[in-house]
Amino acid sequence: METAIQREKLEQAIGILDEHDIDCWLTFARETSETPDPALKLILGQDVTWQSAFLVTRAGRRIAIVGGPDGGSVRQLGLYETVLTYDEGIMPLLRQTIRQLDPRSIALNYSLGDVASDGLTYGMYLQLMDGLKRTPYRQRLVSAAPIVGPLRSRKTATELARMRRAIALTEEIYAQVGAFLRPGRTEREVAEHVHDEVKRRGLVTSWEWELCPMVNAGAASEAGHAGPSDLVMREGDLVHLDFGVAYEGYRADLQRMWYLRSERDPEPPEGVRQAFHACVTAIETARNVLHAGVPGWQVDAAARAHLTGAGYPEYKHALGHSVGLATHDGGPLIGPRWPRYGETPERAIEPDSVYTLELGTPTERGYIGLEDEVLVTAGGARFISSVQRELMLVG
Amino acid sequence: METAIQREKLEQAIGILDEHDIDCWLTFARETSETPDPALKLILGQDVTWQSAFLVTRAGRRIAIVGGPDGGSVRQLGLYETVLTYDEGIMPLLRQTIRQLDPRSIALNYSLGDVASDGLTYGMYLQLMDGLKRTPYRQRLVSAAPIVGPLRSRKTATELARMRRAIALTEEIYAQVGAFLRPGRTEREVAEHVHDEVKRRGLVTSWEWELCPMVNAGAASEAGHAGPSDLVMREGDLVHLDFGVAYEGYRADLQRMWYLRSERDPEPPEGVRQAFHACVTAIETARNVLHAGVPGWQVDAAARAHLTGAGYPEYKHALGHSVGLATHDGGPLIGPRWPRYGETPERAIEPDSVYTLELGTPTERGYIGLEDEVLVTAGGARFISSVQRELMLVG
Repeated sequence: METAIQREKLEQAIGILDEHDIDCWLTFARETSETPDPALKLILGQDVTWQSAFLVTRAGRRIAIVGGPDGGSVRQLGLYETVLTYDEGIMPLLRQTIRQLDPRSIALNYSLGDVASDGLTYGMYLQLMDGLKRTPYRQRLVSAAPIVGPLRSRKTATELARMRRAIALTEEIYAQVGAFLRPGRTEREVAEHVHDEVKRRGLVTSWEWELCPMVNAGAASEAGHAGPSDLVMREGDLVHLDFGVAYEGYRADLQRMWYLRSERDPEPPEGVRQAFHACVTAIETARNVLHAGVPGWQVDAAARAHLTGAGYPEYKHALGHSVGLATHDGGPLIGPRWPRYGETPERAIEPDSVYTLELGTPTERGYIGLEDEVLVTAGGARFISSVQRELMLVG
Repeated sequence: METAIQREKLEQAIGILDEHDIDCWLTFARETSETPDPALKLILGQDVTWQSAFLVTRAGRRIAIVGGPDGGSVRQLGLYETVLTYDEGIMPLLRQTIRQLDPRSIALNYSLGDVASDGLTYGMYLQLMDGLKRTPYRQRLVSAAPIVGPLRSRKTATELARMRRAIALTEEIYAQVGAFLRPGRTEREVAEHVHDEVKRRGLVTSWEWELCPMVNAGAASEAGHAGPSDLVMREGDLVHLDFGVAYEGYRADLQRMWYLRSERDPEPPEGVRQAFHACVTAIETARNVLHAGVPGWQVDAAARAHLTGAGYPEYKHALGHSVGLATHDGGPLIGPRWPRYGETPERAIEPDSVYTLELGTPTERGYIGLEDEVLVTAGGARFISSVQRELMLVG
């Protein structure tokens, strides 16, 4: 198996542990084909069957404890300098390993707001608490969100190359869509056309097949997560797609907009053009305040204020999410301080992270939704997708 | 989307709640493409993005609370009579719904031993505890393992039909393997041949592609979860495969054995034949004591005692696991009372469940491993795969 990413990520993790003054990071998982821990993609890249523990320490130790049958494949990866195996129960080996390391803090994969840092199940947590009873380590458990968040966020060179490729492939498929759109086609036909292009390239979609792409044709189509319908597009409609493909595990996530010209309205009506312009400038406003270190909510607030200030309704989601191995890659969120986002909008954006910037508004001709991707550094944010600034005209 | 299974499972769940005297079952999940709750496949069959709650009550109520963008697709399914949506936070709606139902007990998806009942993450558990503070419901939370276990175990007619088809397709591909085996081929070539047959039929493997099939050629090959290697098979070797394909989500899991005849040994040596016979009869012994209601450990113990009594080493895994939507489908385990299995071997086998019966032993010519599938009822267990009772001879 190819392990370039995992090698880079384990190196990175050791540095982040040091930054956050945490001695040890413990990923505790089992049957990860059924209940995957998102962190394992970063530091292992394969599934495990029985209870398994992956310990990374600030001092640079990398220790895996896995069931006997997984020992061979985990050793083959060469990512962990020590691979211990057991037959009957993991706890004696795990306790002994923790005792030897004697960490002042042990970070576990749980988080209220950040799904990518929340892979530990409640049943596994209870097992660990039971296994650590009558040890001092139960009192030293902390959330690994400060480790896993930055680890996912800070893209390595290998990761960035894959992400750029995923974006290029997504845009290549988007370039086919314009020629396919015409009055009389249904949303479903457009989705099928996109799926054909995905299959022809042997790719997979960035999220579940039936809902990727999402297609909205005209004002009667409700924007949201429902799948493409048999709604027929007509002259004068806006057509909106939300779509992306993955390349070697790394996802792209872009939205694009077309306008179906009619004899009466060869150009979109003034109101639609203004709304489109407001969306473009709201995203640009946000990009201008976005840089590593800024709390995500401030960036979201800038776009939100711009759009509502121009007289449009608030969009009902976050402005931007991290993208990577997952389409919603966790970590700090560029979103409003709403309860469902927990503390994620409070967190500072990490350097070398990739975010979507996305928002939209309904119009008389259909939903306008824009989404591009930016790479964030201390100096600012620059687009790594071919940002859409004009409606594409069809017909 | 096709929802036959989910409809049957929701009906079943209401009955099981009543059986176990539990008022309400709550599945609480988010971003299920990243941290899936295995129970959702049974009662929803698609992913959700924001925090979502699925409540099923003993009185037959089915209520979903999902984020706004998921509302359309969840309503389209028609599985929940009430679908509530929110924009900012789920807790007000969830608290209100629970207050109205006022259940004496609320079952959550956590379990120490049963992965299929352990989909609730620790972070989501903490959120729920926070959301239910200053209510009496925090004290009424129980594990949903007694609900989810039987729900997965008891196969409906639709599920059984799919499982039989998955077995038939697996056996169809196995039937191609014998003709391909010959001295000089590597394990990897055999795996590639099997993969070609899988792709040609547009199927997916029952577990991760790289490790399905597992192939062991001769005594130098270490049985276990490492992938097929460049090891070359020679005359007189045993060849062992562990493999299965899925049909409409339902998996098969079977092991098969071949012997490569040599001029010197046109038949396997006596020791190999005896070991093979001991494995066959150990499985048969277990099948004879297996029926709905028996605790799984008793069935495992019968096979284990038979094999060790015949002078062979103990196999280092459970004799049988439930199969279904997952290859390891959770629920009661036919396994020894080892710590890593938690309480799952203590539990009584459910009626209408499908189990593997699998064990093996090393020999001078290679690993012997056998695995077939049985359907368990109150009356006993009968094979639903074409059980292997003789070594297949090649050459």
